[in-house]
Amino acid sequence: MQDSIAFTLAQLAEQLNARLQGEGGRVIHGLAALQDAGPEQLSFLANRQYRKLLADSQAGAVLLTEADAADYAGNALIVADPYLAYARISHQFDPRPKSRPGIHPSAVIADSARIDASASIGAGVVVEAHAVIGANVTLGAQCFVGERCHIGADSWLAPRVTLYHDVRMGARCVIQSGAVIGGEGFGFANSGGRWNKIAQIGGVLIGDDVEIGANTTIDRGALSDTVISNGVKLDNQIQIAHNVHIGEHTAMAACVGISGSTHIGRHCMIAGGVGMVGHIEVCDNVFVSGMTMVTRSITEPGAYSSGTAMQTAGEWKKSAARFRQLDALAKRVQQLEKQLPAVTQPPQGSSES
Amino acid sequence: MQDSIAFTLAQLAEQLNARLQGEGGRVIHGLAALQDAGPEQLSFLANRQYRKLLADSQAGAVLLTEADAADYAGNALIVADPYLAYARISHQFDPRPKSRPGIHPSAVIADSARIDASASIGAGVVVEAHAVIGANVTLGAQCFVGERCHIGADSWLAPRVTLYHDVRMGARCVIQSGAVIGGEGFGFANSGGRWNKIAQIGGVLIGDDVEIGANTTIDRGALSDTVISNGVKLDNQIQIAHNVHIGEHTAMAACVGISGSTHIGRHCMIAGGVGMVGHIEVCDNVFVSGMTMVTRSITEPGAYSSGTAMQTAGEWKKSAARFRQLDALAKRVQQLEKQLPAVTQPPQGSSES
Amino acid sequence: MQDSIAFTLAQLAEQLNARLQGEGGRVIHGLAALQDAGPEQLSFLANRQYRKLLADSQAGAVLLTEADAADYAGNALIVADPYLAYARISHQFDPRPKSRPGIHPSAVIADSARIDASASIGAGVVVEAHAVIGANVTLGAQCFVGERCHIGADSWLAPRVTLYHDVRMGARCVIQSGAVIGGEGFGFANSGGRWNKIAQIGGVLIGDDVEIGANTTIDRGALSDTVISNGVKLDNQIQIAHNVHIGEHTAMAACVGISGSTHIGRHCMIAGGVGMVGHIEVCDNVFVSGMTMVTRSITEPGAYSSGTAMQTAGEWKKSAARFRQLDALAKRVQQLEKQLPAVTQPPQGSSES
Repeated sequence: MQDSIAFTLAQLAEQLNARLQGEGGRVIHGLAALQDAGPEQLSFLANRQYRKLLADSQAGAVLLTEADAADYAGNALIVADPYLAYARISHQFDPRPKSRPGIHPSAVIADSARIDASASIGAGVVVEAHAVIGANVTLGAQCFVGERCHIGADSWLAPRVTLYHDVRMGARCVIQSGAVIGGEGFGFANSGGRWNKIAQIGGVLIGDDVEIGANTTIDRGALSDTVISNGVKLDNQIQIAHNVHIGEHTAMAACVGISGSTHIGRHCMIAGGVGMVGHIEVCDNVFVSGMTMVTRSITEPGAYSSGTAMQTAGEWKKSAARFRQLDALAKRVQQLEKQLPAVTQPPQGSSES
Repeated sequence: MQDSIAFTLAQLAEQLNARLQGEGGRVIHGLAALQDAGPEQLSFLANRQYRKLLADSQAGAVLLTEADAADYAGNALIVADPYLAYARISHQFDPRPKSRPGIHPSAVIADSARIDASASIGAGVVVEAHAVIGANVTLGAQCFVGERCHIGADSWLAPRVTLYHDVRMGARCVIQSGAVIGGEGFGFANSGGRWNKIAQIGGVLIGDDVEIGANTTIDRGALSDTVISNGVKLDNQIQIAHNVHIGEHTAMAACVGISGSTHIGRHCMIAGGVGMVGHIEVCDNVFVSGMTMVTRSITEPGAYSSGTAMQTAGEWKKSAARFRQLDALAKRVQQLEKQLPAVTQPPQGSSES
Repeated sequence: MQDSIAFTLAQLAEQLNARLQGEGGRVIHGLAALQDAGPEQLSFLANRQYRKLLADSQAGAVLLTEADAADYAGNALIVADPYLAYARISHQFDPRPKSRPGIHPSAVIADSARIDASASIGAGVVVEAHAVIGANVTLGAQCFVGERCHIGADSWLAPRVTLYHDVRMGARCVIQSGAVIGGEGFGFANSGGRWNKIAQIGGVLIGDDVEIGANTTIDRGALSDTVISNGVKLDNQIQIAHNVHIGEHTAMAACVGISGSTHIGRHCMIAGGVGMVGHIEVCDNVFVSGMTMVTRSITEPGAYSSGTAMQTAGEWKKSAARFRQLDALAKRVQQLEKQLPAVTQPPQGSSES
C-alpha cells in the first residue's frame, strides 16, 4: 500500500539481530504469508505444520529457525523465534499513518490541560481541564479526554476514543476506536421496585503496555478504581464492569464480559465470548475456552470450559430435549442399579424356593 | 480526587433524614468501602455478611441499620436501608464535572432546533433540525442529536452519544458514551438469495428515568416505535432490536441481546450475556440468569436458566461428548428398563418349569 | 412523522408494477402493520398465519398475493411477493433526512482527498489524505475516514462511523453509527509471558451492497485483507476478526463474533450471539442457530446448533448438575448393559445346575 517502504535483507538482519543466509542486498518492500509472498516480500515459518509451504514459496526471504533453514536453499533470516521476529519487524512495514507533533486547530483544549510539545492531537479532539498528555502521545481525531486524565508517554489512541474524567494510563498503551473508558458502572439500589442510581466515584487505573480493542468498554470503579495491570491485552467489544481487577499480561479475546468486582490473575488467557459473574477470583495462569460461563472462583491454574459442542440442528434438538430430562434419566439409572442386584445376586433363601 | 468536597456528619444526617450517633462535627470528604475507609470517609454496611469488617473499620462514620448500630461504638448515621442511603448520598461526592449552561462555540446547531437556555451543549456537538432539548439537559462533547429528537428535562448524555432522527426520551435519563439510539433495524426481504433492505420508519420512545449504558445499541422500529419504558436500566453493550418493548423498571446487565419484536414485562432482571429470540413475550417479574438463551415466551414469574456449569476442560470434554450421545443413552436406558422386568418379574409359567 | 409524504394507490401500483384492486385515487401517507393501519396507510400480508387480521384491518390498502386478494373486499395492490413489495415501497415513506450535496464548513478534509461534487459530507467529518469518496455518497456527521480509503458510489454512512486507513468499500453500502472498520486485529507473539504486538498491515475490502450495523467492528487483516463480499448484511455489535472472509449474501444477526482467519461461505444465515473459533471453514448455505458455539469447520449445508434449552432455574440446576456427571452416568449404563445379559441370557451350562 505504501511502495516507499524498503529495506535490504542485510538491514533487516541487523535490526533483528538475525543471521543472514543468502543475498544481503535483496530489497524487501513488505510482509506476506508463505503462500502469498512474492520476491520483494519477507515471510516467516512460525508453525512447523506449514513447513510444506516453504518449498513452493516465492518469498524474497523467510524468517526461519536454524533447524528449518538447514535444508532451505532460499534467502533466510535465521532467528530463535521466527514469529516473535515477525512481530518485531512488522512495525517497519505498517502503513498506519505517522503522527505529527502538534495540536490540530479544530481541537478544543482546556487551558489547564498539559500537553507535551511532542504529542499529536488530531482534528476535533476535546481535552478537558487538568488532563495531562505525555511525550509522543497520539490522540487520534475526535478523541475525548475527560478532566484530570493522565496519558503516559508513547501511548497511541486511535480516532474516536472516549475517556471519562479521572482515567489514568501508563506508557505505551494502544487504544482502538470506539473504546469507552471510565463509563459509569451499573450500580443501583432497589427500593420498592425502583432503581436508585449510585454515583460511580472511583476511576480507572491502566498500567503500561496495555492494549484495549475497538468498542471495548471499561467502567470506572464505584468507590475505588477499576484496575487494568501492565501488559494486559483486551480485544474488541469486551465489557469490564466496575471494580474489576485484571492481573499483569492477561489477554482476553473479543466479546468477553466480566461482571463487577471480579478479580482475574496474571498470565490468564480468556477466549472469545466468555462471561464471568461478579465478585469472584480467578487465579494466575488460567485458560478459559470460548463462550464459557464462569460461575464460581477458580483457584487452580488450568483450562476450564462450559457449554455443549455443536451438532446438526436435528441431532441437537434430541440432545437438548434429553438434557431437560437429565435428572429423571439419572434417577432411572439409579433405579435400574437398585433392581439389578436383586436379580444377579439373588436374595438369601431364593434358591430354596 | 476533589478535595473540596466536605460535609459534616450533622449535614449528612440532615440530608438523609438519618439519626446521628457520635460526632456531628466530624468532617467527611468522601465515601469508601469498610475495609478501605479512613477517618475522613463515610462507609456503609449493606450486607450483614460483611459485619465482621465493621469492628476493624477506620471509617469516620458508617451508614447502619438500628440493629447494626446498637453494638457499634463509632460514629454512625442510622437509617432504614443503608445501601439506599449510600446510593442517595453518593451523588454529593461524585467527581463528575458539573455541566455549565450554554452552547460551546464549536457545536453545530440547526436553526430550527429548540434548546432550553439552561441546557449545556458540549464541544463538537451536532443538533439537527427541529430537535428539542429540555431544561437542564447536558449534551456531552461530540454528541449527535438527529432531526426531531426530543430530550426531556434534566437528562444527561455523556460525550459521544448518537441519536438518529425521531428519538424521544423523557426526563432524567442518563445515556453513557458510545450508545447508538435509533439505528436502522435489521430488516430485509429475501428475494432469490439476495437481501432487500426494508426502510425502518418507526422511531424510539424512551420514558423517564431510563439509563442506557456505554456502546449499547437500540434500533428504531420498523413501522411503529421501539419502546423503553420508565425506569428501565440498561448496562453496557446491550443490543435492543427493532420493535422491542421493555416494561417499566426492568434492568438488564451488560451484553444482553434482545431480538426483534420481543416484549419484556415490568420489574424483570436480565443478567449479563442473555440472548432472547424474536417475537416472544416475557411476563413481569422474571429473572433470567447469565448467558441464558431464551427461546420461548415466559408466562410465569420466576427464575430461568440454560447452559451448563463450568468444569475443568478435561472433564468438560467428556461431558460434552456424552451430551452429543444423550438421545442414544436415554434409549439405552429405556431398553434396559424393558429388559429388566423380564427378569425381575418372571413371565407367566416360568415357575412351573 | 412527516405528513408531506403522499402517494395515490395508482402511483404506488405503478411503482411496484402491482395490479390495483379498488380506489386508484386513495391517498396513502404511510405504512403500518395490519392491526395498526388506518385509512391513510398501506399495509401488507406477508405471512398467511396473520390472515385473520386482514378482515378487521382499517388499512387504506393492503399488499396481497392474488390468492389472498380474491376474497378481500378492500383496496389491494396485488403482487407476487407482498413482503418484497413492502421492502421496496418502504423507502418512499422513510423519514430519514435527505442528504444534501456539499461539504459542511466544520469538516476537516485533507487536500489530497478526492470527494465527488455530489457527495454529502456532514458536520465535524474528518477525511484523511488520498481518500476517495464516490458519487452521491453520504458521510454523516462526525465520521472519520482514514488515509487511502475508498467509498463507492451511493454508499450511506450514518453519523460517527470510523474507517481506519486502507478500507475500501463498493457501491451502495450502508454503515450504521459507531461501526469501526479497519481496527487493528488482535495479533501478539508471546515471549516469556509477555505479548508483543504484531503490526496489522492488511486492510479491509468490502463489496457492493453491504450493510454493517451499529457498533459492529471489523478488524483489518494482519498481512492481506479482511474480506466482506457483495451483499453481506451484518447486524449490530458483530465482531469480525482479522483475515476473516465472508461470502456473498451471507447475513448475520446481532452480537455474532467471528475469530481470526475463519472463512464463511455464501448465503449463510448466522443467528444472534453465535461465536466461531478461528481458522475454520464454513461452507455455503449454512444456518447456525442463536448463541451456538461453532468449534469446527462445517462442510455440509444445513442447520447447526449447540447449547441447552431454557428451563426454570430450579429444574436447570438439576440438569446442569447431572451434565457434570454425564460421563459417569454413561459408564453406569454401560455397566448395567454388561450385567443384564448375564441374567437374561444365562451363560452356557447354567441351566444344567
